[in-house]
Parts: sequence; structure tokens; C-alpha cells
Amino acid sequence: MTRRPLADHQAAVAAHLAGLAGTETVPVRVALDRTTSAPVRAPYSLPLFDNSAMDGFAVRAAEVSPGADLEVGGRIFAGDTTRPVLRAGTAMAIMTGAPLPAGADAVIPVEASHETAGSGQQSTVRFDAAPEPGAFIRSAGDDVAAGEVVIAAGTRLAPRHLGALAAAGVETIEVHRRPAVAIISTGSELIRAGATPQAGQVFESNSLVLQSLSTKHGARVTFIGSAGDDGDFATILTAACQDADLVLTSGGISMGEREPVRQTLAEHGWFGPVAMQPGGPQGLATWKQTPVCCLPGNPVSIVVSFEVLLRDVLRGIAGLPPVASNRAVLAHDITSVPGKTQFLRGVSEPDGSVRPLGGPGSHLAVTAAAAELLIEIDADTTELPAGTEVTTWPLT
Amino acid sequence: MTRRPLADHQAAVAAHLAGLAGTETVPVRVALDRTTSAPVRAPYSLPLFDNSAMDGFAVRAAEVSPGADLEVGGRIFAGDTTRPVLRAGTAMAIMTGAPLPAGADAVIPVEASHETAGSGQQSTVRFDAAPEPGAFIRSAGDDVAAGEVVIAAGTRLAPRHLGALAAAGVETIEVHRRPAVAIISTGSELIRAGATPQAGQVFESNSLVLQSLSTKHGARVTFIGSAGDDGDFATILTAACQDADLVLTSGGISMGEREPVRQTLAEHGWFGPVAMQPGGPQGLATWKQTPVCCLPGNPVSIVVSFEVLLRDVLRGIAGLPPVASNRAVLAHDITSVPGKTQFLRGVSEPDGSVRPLGGPGSHLAVTAAAAELLIEIDADTTELPAGTEVTTWPLT
Repeated sequence: MTRRPLADHQAAVAAHLAGLAGTETVPVRVALDRTTSAPVRAPYSLPLFDNSAMDGFAVRAAEVSPGADLEVGGRIFAGDTTRPVLRAGTAMAIMTGAPLPAGADAVIPVEASHETAGSGQQSTVRFDAAPEPGAFIRSAGDDVAAGEVVIAAGTRLAPRHLGALAAAGVETIEVHRRPAVAIISTGSELIRAGATPQAGQVFESNSLVLQSLSTKHGARVTFIGSAGDDGDFATILTAACQDADLVLTSGGISMGEREPVRQTLAEHGWFGPVAMQPGGPQGLATWKQTPVCCLPGNPVSIVVSFEVLLRDVLRGIAGLPPVASNRAVLAHDITSVPGKTQFLRGVSEPDGSVRPLGGPGSHLAVTAAAAELLIEIDADTTELPAGTEVTTWPLT
Repeated sequence: MTRRPLADHQAAVAAHLAGLAGTETVPVRVALDRTTSAPVRAPYSLPLFDNSAMDGFAVRAAEVSPGADLEVGGRIFAGDTTRPVLRAGTAMAIMTGAPLPAGADAVIPVEASHETAGSGQQSTVRFDAAPEPGAFIRSAGDDVAAGEVVIAAGTRLAPRHLGALAAAGVETIEVHRRPAVAIISTGSELIRAGATPQAGQVFESNSLVLQSLSTKHGARVTFIGSAGDDGDFATILTAACQDADLVLTSGGISMGEREPVRQTLAEHGWFGPVAMQPGGPQGLATWKQTPVCCLPGNPVSIVVSFEVLLRDVLRGIAGLPPVASNRAVLAHDITSVPGKTQFLRGVSEPDGSVRPLGGPGSHLAVTAAAAELLIEIDADTTELPAGTEVTTWPLT
């Protein structure tokens, strides 16, 4: 059977999932790590009102003479909502963030002030020096004017962005949707952690890998199920489609006699070998109007298939940039199979060169966990001496 | 009042929170991004049993002659738990992952096989070539032997690590604890997004900033509350301590006349100025046996205080490495205040140099959100010409 070129299948996956892109409105308080799909504008000017930057005294700068007493005409606290008035020839005690009284044009910090009677009635205050007009005043609109952009479109929201949005009084924002992903692993040999395995059985790990990879790259997982090889797959697939934008399956698509995924979905999509290793068997189908991306069942194939075919597509839907590849030289000679793009699990050496890790077996889940990167070898290259420059991809 | 040197206060915070470190046991399925506190060993050898790497035929290699027929003595599927036996002079159809029959020493892929009658009774099969002994067999223990380390201590668990643990049949693991953090913002001027502000009021943003920063750096947030400046702080603080390992407060610790945090906790800890800007006023106390870290209330001070005082302490408790600083040159001249370590909000220029962003005002929350890094200027330096090398810290 002719192998589909990798780039063709990558394009097919991207096209199949293109309809998942969209936007939604979410509260700012749960928007950490989401990506804005539109600029967010300030509903109000900030600060909302002239206020004091210090604990101290609000004055008219021209009325202050070093050493001369001013009557303290009142005390203004943060949270006061009645705007006070500074009477001529007086000062008012003012706390940080409290509204500046009408008539005041400067604040003198408490550290440079000498009040006669603390916070009692009829006290007076004397200052070391006259202030510059405007000193220690935060003017309304200093930070942002109403209608200005607070956060640009395409911003992945870090804590400080959420802080700016909250401070600006923004309650909800428009962000890129996180597609809802359902996951089904297949195989009659699969058992869950905690069970005591009999010979012939295998601990299921692919659903957890797909769940955590999807979560890391902008999706949310709404369903996790598993099916044996003998009949229940279609039922579980239909259930998975209820709340999902996309279904990912593992296993059941190769050349065996019990391949429930391929057998159920063959008439609803494309199945065949892709010119990549590991991860050769692939499928792409539609069930109940929901796209289904069918990955092979070996643990290493699952990771490579996700990274190569799905990672950047899901990231794009969530408004995240694609993961950047790097270039590095090989630490030693390697050979590669002809006709397939090969993805070797590898690690970086201290000198920045890279070397493959472990054997080619796509069942070596534990060995592969130590890899930090994928080394990509193109389909036409079979002999790569040490020092050859190759493309590498960081593993999630 | 003498300012406490920044390094002294950093050490005091670290010492105050040292008791929060610990370990806990969690299910592997919810361990994404947690950090292992002990090596995890394989409970079983993997693969658990010799099995086929391909869909094909299990044979004795010595019995295969190109073009000669062998009787197909049975069919073995993944998940079969009764170990089959390969009779002399026969082959058995075998699926990927199915247990190798006793007596077989090689698998020949279906692509290199010619079976007479599909999956019916009494079929025969003929092969193009004799296999190497061991071909396409995954041997028991190939990947990992029982008792070997699957994941080292100190590993931050990525999807592939979870995959390895699940595949190895590991159900629970020991990880560094995530400390439970309670957050209280204080200030009578504070209102929530969605409210219509009156002059004198300010949208509260610090609790969301502290919540998301804590979450990003290995903690979990169990309580978010707010208090005015006039009496309810102690009640809310007591409630916050119920389920928290650590309480973070914002505001209420400076020189004003209504400073509920300082007034409540002065006898239970240390309050005073730290030689840093922004973020000068700081406090560190204990309430109901729970450490309380008291941060200033300005939005920019909150971010800087967290990054400088708390970030790496919380990361250490969660088993995460400290954030690495960088060195960069200034894009233009700057001046700094004497006697305080200054942290300017800045951005990188295309040439790698850095420049400060916006003004010094610690209330400029929206302006500061555009910053990507903090530029650290030590307490003794006041004049820094363009080209001076400085330490920078990436903002979360």
C-alpha cells in the first residue's frame, strides 16, 4: 500500500480540524493561560479619580511655608466616596489611595510632616519644605484612558495581564476556544493501574498521555473511555461524540484481524500508512458530525503522532503559537529507514549535540520517557554521519 | 526607620516558610506537572510477556523454508491470557501485542506472508524468506526490569512521564506537596469587577494576581477573601487559616492611620520597610500557627514582591527549580534611587538590550502588564549609562 507523505497527512489533519476554531466569552478570573481573540479596551480611565500616592497631607503648594503651621481641616481615608474640599489656608490628612480633596494640588508625605496632636480635633501641621505642585498625586487617567487597549489580541494571559484587566474593571473577555477532546483507547489486552496483570495483559497508558498532551496544548478533555477489540467501540464512540469537538482514538487501525477503529470507521474516512516512523498507521474520519483522529496504539507512536500531527493544530485553535523547532548536530553516526520521515527519541549532550536514546521499538514506553526531544530525519536520508545537522523538536 | 536589606528579608521569608515543605502520595492520573520526591521503581518487568511486534505469523525460524507451506495451527489475539503452544511444523497467526506462543522464536509480518484461506479453518501459510530468530518479538523485560527506576526523584512530570508510569502499572507516587495558600486583599476602597465604581473606589485586582502567580509556581489556592480597613480583618484572617499552610495579604501595612494588617499582626511578627522599590513596606507574621506574608497593596508592588520574595520559595517547596536570571545591557541611560534595590519593569529590544517601561508609579497596573521582565538595580548604584550590564528576571 502506498504511504501517504507526512506533509500531506499533516495538512489533512489540519483541514479536518479547522472547523474547531472559534471564540468564547469567559470571566477574567478564570482566564489564566487563555489567549485573547480581540483587543480588550478599558471601560474606565485609571486611576478613576485623583488620589494620593502616600500617607500624608493634601495641600495647596503655594500655601505651604517651611516651618509655618496650617490647620488640619479633616482626614481623608481610602474608600471615602464623598469628595472632600480643601478650605483655603488648611491642610487635610490623607491616606494612600484616598481621593484628593478639591483645591489641593500636592501631597506631602507624613515622614516630612509634623502634626501637633495626632489624629485629634483641631490639630495643626508644619512641613519641612514646600512641595512641587503635583507632588505625590496620582492623576485620574494616568495609567490608561477609557477606550484605550489594555490587552492586545493574541495575548496569552499571564498573572500580570489578569491583574491589569481586573484593575481596569473588565469582568469578561473574548478568548480563543479550547476544543473539547474525547479520548478512547482500544485493545482487549488493556488493563488499568491497580489491577493484577495476567500474562497477555498490558497496562493502559495512552489515554493519560493523550489527556495530558491535549491539556498542555490548549484543549480540554471531556471524556475518557476504552474499548475492547470485539464490538463495543461504536457504542463508546457515539457516547464520546456527545460533548466533544474532536475524538482521539488509540489502537485498532493496523493490519490485524480485529481492528475495531478501522473496521467501524473505514467507510467514514481515510485509513492507511503515513510515511513516518514511528506512527505509520493513521486514520482520519467523521462520526456523528464529529472529527475523529485515529492514532496507532503503541505508547511511543502515540507521543510521536500527537507531537507531529496534532500539537500545533490544537495550539492554533487555542490561539497559541506553534512550537519552534531547533537545529543541532548529531553526536554520532546514525542510519535511518528510506521512504519514511523518522522521529528518533533523543537527548542533548552537554556540548549541544544530540543523540538518539534507546532502541527503535515503539513499545518502549519507559525508555522513551527519558527523551527530551525528537530528532527528525527526512524520508530521503538513510546515512547520517556524526556532525550532521538535523532538526529537533522539544518534547512536551 | 532603618530599612531591612533585601537579602535579609528574602532569607527571613524563606525561613518562615521552610516548614511548608513535605511530600504526599497522589494518583498518577492527576500528577501532571507535579515533581517526584523519590525515585519510582517498576513493580513489574515490561513487557510483561514475550509478544509480537507485528500482525503476522509466529514460527520456529528453523522450520521456515521460502515457498514451503506450513499449517496454520491457530490464531492468537491481543488480550488472550491463556498462553498458546506452537506445535512442531506449524505456524500461528498472531496480532500485534498478542502473547508469543511457547516454542515460537520469530514473527513474520503479514505483509511477507501468503495464507491460503484467510482466517478460516485448516489454512496454510507460505513465506517469502526465513526469518532471523527473534525477529519482531518484543521480549519480556526489554523495556524495564521489575525494581528498576522508571522515573527519577525530582522529575517534573510531563505527559510522557505519566505515560511511562501508567504503562509500568504504577498507580500512586510520592511527590512534593503543593502548599495551600489563602489570599486576603485589604482596603475599604476596593470593589469587584462588575460593580459600578463611585469616585474614591478602586477595582480589586491583587487577589487574582496572587492566585494566578501562586498557581503558576507550585501552590494551590484554597481561600480568597477581602477585608475593609475598619475591623473585619482578624475575623477573615482566622477563617483563611483554617485550610491554609500560608496566608498572603495585600495592603494595610504602611504608614497610614487605618492599616488593619499591621495593626492586627504587629505583635505577631515583623513589619517595616525593606530596602527595595517598589514593594518597600513588608511584613511577616504568624497567626493561629500559620505563617502570614504581608505584601503592600499597590498592584505593581504586589507583582514585584511576589517575584522577588515568594516565587522561588514556593517553587522550592513544590520541588521546582528556581527561575533563572539573565544578564542584558541597558538600551539607554537610567538613574536609580540610592539605598534600595530597584526593580524596573522592562522589555527586551530586538538587539537583546533592555529598557524600562512606563513610569515608576507602583499604581500603574495596566502599563506594567506590558512588561516582560524585571531589571534589577542594586542598592548602591544610582547612575547607569546605556550599555551597562544588568541582571534581569523574566516575569511570570
